[in-house]
Amino acid sequence: MQELKERILAEGQNLGNGILKIDSILNHQIDTGLIMRCGQEIAARFKSEGVNRVLTAEVSGIAPAFAVGLSLGVPVVYARKVKPVTMYGPVFLETAPSHTKGMDVNLLISAEFLPGNERILVLDDFLASGKTIRSLVRMVRSAKSTVVGIAAVVEKTFEGGRAMLEHYGVPIFALATITSMDDGKIIFSE
Amino acid sequence: MQELKERILAEGQNLGNGILKIDSILNHQIDTGLIMRCGQEIAARFKSEGVNRVLTAEVSGIAPAFAVGLSLGVPVVYARKVKPVTMYGPVFLETAPSHTKGMDVNLLISAEFLPGNERILVLDDFLASGKTIRSLVRMVRSAKSTVVGIAAVVEKTFEGGRAMLEHYGVPIFALATITSMDDGKIIFSE
Repeated sequence: MQELKERILAEGQNLGNGILKIDSILNHQIDTGLIMRCGQEIAARFKSEGVNRVLTAEVSGIAPAFAVGLSLGVPVVYARKVKPVTMYGPVFLETAPSHTKGMDVNLLISAEFLPGNERILVLDDFLASGKTIRSLVRMVRSAKSTVVGIAAVVEKTFEGGRAMLEHYGVPIFALATITSMDDGKIIFSE
Repeated sequence: MQELKERILAEGQNLGNGILKIDSILNHQIDTGLIMRCGQEIAARFKSEGVNRVLTAEVSGIAPAFAVGLSLGVPVVYARKVKPVTMYGPVFLETAPSHTKGMDVNLLISAEFLPGNERILVLDDFLASGKTIRSLVRMVRSAKSTVVGIAAVVEKTFEGGRAMLEHYGVPIFALATITSMDDGKIIFSE
């Protein structure tokens, strides 16, 4: 998505260690128009898949997932990282390392919002190591629903997430794919 | 907003101690169509205020704030509760008790995303004790910007938030106002 790549080049900051700061676009400030167009583009890619639900993880997945869910006319569910007092009854739980928090985090989804026999689009802001997305995929499969696709706003191929997720045999789609952040640069794939 | 009230009556759960669970609508699952209509309604109320930015707090404020910001054509900023590695430079910081987490939480906003001389709409999912919203208002004033309004999807009047916030002299607007949750009931104002 050309507009997104241009904005990342203009405003993104390469903080080293593969960390890309796009806080002016998505991760602290949200450019609502741009993120809506990102959501529409992802929705267009998976429109024919009969998606019942978009699944993401709090926090930064929520805005793009909302844009996709709104475009597809389906609900979004976001995995919680801390159990709120309103959460009771059975939950799906996976643990994944957080790149930006520097520690393991739990991902929790109430069973009532992840029923079986559905077609689920799994989405996150970044596809990097793929471990958050893998946790979401595992919960969908544990619920006996089907992952029909994996989507990310930004993919960093050099962290191996796509390679790790490919064995699930579902389409993996990113709006902007970064192949290198060496030497302070941000290099996109063609 | 009649549609929202009906959905809260149909799906909301009164968990006691003034805690309303609307996880099927907003706080875990997001009904994207309903929340977009909520955002449009809030945007219509503040359309003439020349809003530059919508300010909310992660996590549950993000989806309705996104809907409002998209409707008004302005960015959203969400206060973070934990400092991510991408956040550096000066921040505004306030501490507020979290009703659903049972502890104090920090609210952090990078100074770069809360400049002065702007007109800010402060929004959260719930207006209850008002303490999260008060923290957001304080940060806006500390940045020398102007709060033009306070909006919530759901207000619980019996927790005193509106009374505490009224001295700021800005309009306070909620889409569904609950006056009592005694005896397991959910009672809306007229």
